[in-house]
Amino acid sequence: MITLEKIADQANVSVSTVSKALSGHKAISQKTKDRIRQIADELGYTPNANAQSLVNKRANTIGVVYEVEFGLRNLFFSAVLEEFRRNAQLNGYDILLLSNNNEKNIDYFRHCQSKNVDGVLIVSIGSAPIEAINKLTQSSMAVITLDPLHSGLNTIYSDSYAGIQKSCQHLYDLGHRKIAYVNGSYTNLIGQQRLNGYLDFIKAHKLKPIYNAKQSNESYTFSEGYQTMKYLLTEFGLPDAVVCASDLMAMGTITLLQKRGYKIPDDVSVVGFDNLSVCEIATPRLTTIAQDYEGIGKKAWDLMIHMLNTDDRKKEPIIVDTQLVVRESTTTRK
Amino acid sequence: MITLEKIADQANVSVSTVSKALSGHKAISQKTKDRIRQIADELGYTPNANAQSLVNKRANTIGVVYEVEFGLRNLFFSAVLEEFRRNAQLNGYDILLLSNNNEKNIDYFRHCQSKNVDGVLIVSIGSAPIEAINKLTQSSMAVITLDPLHSGLNTIYSDSYAGIQKSCQHLYDLGHRKIAYVNGSYTNLIGQQRLNGYLDFIKAHKLKPIYNAKQSNESYTFSEGYQTMKYLLTEFGLPDAVVCASDLMAMGTITLLQKRGYKIPDDVSVVGFDNLSVCEIATPRLTTIAQDYEGIGKKAWDLMIHMLNTDDRKKEPIIVDTQLVVRESTTTRK
Repeated sequence: MITLEKIADQANVSVSTVSKALSGHKAISQKTKDRIRQIADELGYTPNANAQSLVNKRANTIGVVYEVEFGLRNLFFSAVLEEFRRNAQLNGYDILLLSNNNEKNIDYFRHCQSKNVDGVLIVSIGSAPIEAINKLTQSSMAVITLDPLHSGLNTIYSDSYAGIQKSCQHLYDLGHRKIAYVNGSYTNLIGQQRLNGYLDFIKAHKLKPIYNAKQSNESYTFSEGYQTMKYLLTEFGLPDAVVCASDLMAMGTITLLQKRGYKIPDDVSVVGFDNLSVCEIATPRLTTIAQDYEGIGKKAWDLMIHMLNTDDRKKEPIIVDTQLVVRESTTTRK
Repeated sequence: MITLEKIADQANVSVSTVSKALSGHKAISQKTKDRIRQIADELGYTPNANAQSLVNKRANTIGVVYEVEFGLRNLFFSAVLEEFRRNAQLNGYDILLLSNNNEKNIDYFRHCQSKNVDGVLIVSIGSAPIEAINKLTQSSMAVITLDPLHSGLNTIYSDSYAGIQKSCQHLYDLGHRKIAYVNGSYTNLIGQQRLNGYLDFIKAHKLKPIYNAKQSNESYTFSEGYQTMKYLLTEFGLPDAVVCASDLMAMGTITLLQKRGYKIPDDVSVVGFDNLSVCEIATPRLTTIAQDYEGIGKKAWDLMIHMLNTDDRKKEPIIVDTQLVVRESTTTRK
């Protein structure tokens, strides 16, 4: 077994320096860190969380605010959390899912202090009181949010605007011109970005917008997709293709169209958004815009470690690119 | 705001007695607990976790061993964990997802002690070393497992045997006689129970068994269902109906059959197992055997609180009933 002592011996530094270097401690220069990391890698060293904790005086615990509709059954948020958890675990950190204590006057900051967490990831704040969230993000703790509505800083999220435009472009390239949009939320930033991506594309290509401007869909569910497509069919007739704000909405859209006797993709092409695992098992398999879960989880973890090791608390938002994944729910216009 | 003082005043007992009673402390008689709970309910009291913790000397943290394939993206295990979490949260407890620290010599017991957790829920041990699990379950900690393979005691799981028999009976009642089985694991208790449920039904009704006896499927995935159905078609020809060991396997089965040009349910009826949320969004919507997630989560929580409040560490397994949910993937034999 490779110990810190062996690495220290080889690097000709103290054990404490090795430990600090490997855990990214700010007292060690980047050059030394790189050198020690390389020696550790060459020797095949695997870090031991407890030893790290002793040096850092850390609890090796990351608190998570996860006020998410449907909880861990929410396919999107649980996929993001899983990628973050995987990175945290690789580094010996536990994830503490912070209970709201069934209280209206929840104080996450105090709660985090009493539980001795090192940093906090806010996956989604749902209906949690904004005061409690602000107290967290304005504290000196390392706090990262994946929910861009509530904090401009230290936030990581997908480029929804460009994502929806990729979706539109894919359908346009297939020859479709009557392109409808099954919308998400109109009350938060991400939902607005998706709508604007659609509307700007439609305008730039001189097409007619086909969407429900009046009804905001807050939950991105199958049922909301189903209802929205029902409305669009009645109001606008059959489109060539449909851009959806989520995969589950796309599956609701497809189900409604199939019930009305239309074939997907022969009669109507449909694109989702998210790239949930259900895309693979849907019939037909769903073409979608993939959010980079791995990238988001990894970047969130890297930022967390950076913030834990420094006093840096004001990082600009990190916008993560999306990618078109073509499967079976889209085809050329007949 | 209703305080413990007000309840104590009304009940004519000390604040400490109220606090202990409301948190289920063993020093308080059941009669007193019931009386104080009733007064608290009448006054509309909401518990405060920190106050409880002071009296109980508890951290209000439940550790979770969650060594699950696909992690939080695993639809089944994340649904069970969510129900447990919901109950824990209602009682002011946080969930600590215990990292395996990326170590081969993981010691969960020591890890739990260092993180000061009150009890542990083992959702699934995956490939975690059995020694580390045994050390946990044989300790004096409150440890509950949902994975019946590895511990006969303090375990909660669905009645898989009866569940599969309900699935067979449903198809039999619809007139089907050529009933195939798309199997799960042959190496663990739950998988064996599901197989035995099928084989005993087939034998009791003098039918011919149609299944792959040679290939154990450890992951209950779409892909395993697809491959198994492919094998069964080649070996046995088209069945009337298929009983599957999971919902995802049922969706793989349906996809393979549809690709071969068969209509579900008109040509073949298919039943899943689990009642995941994807059943509702599948095409056709999936008939399945529902595992009682809410019941399992609630019973696990109730047992956890009981064990935290007592020295009782050897409870017999709790077997939870399942239920047939009929949707669109099954119909009468033509």
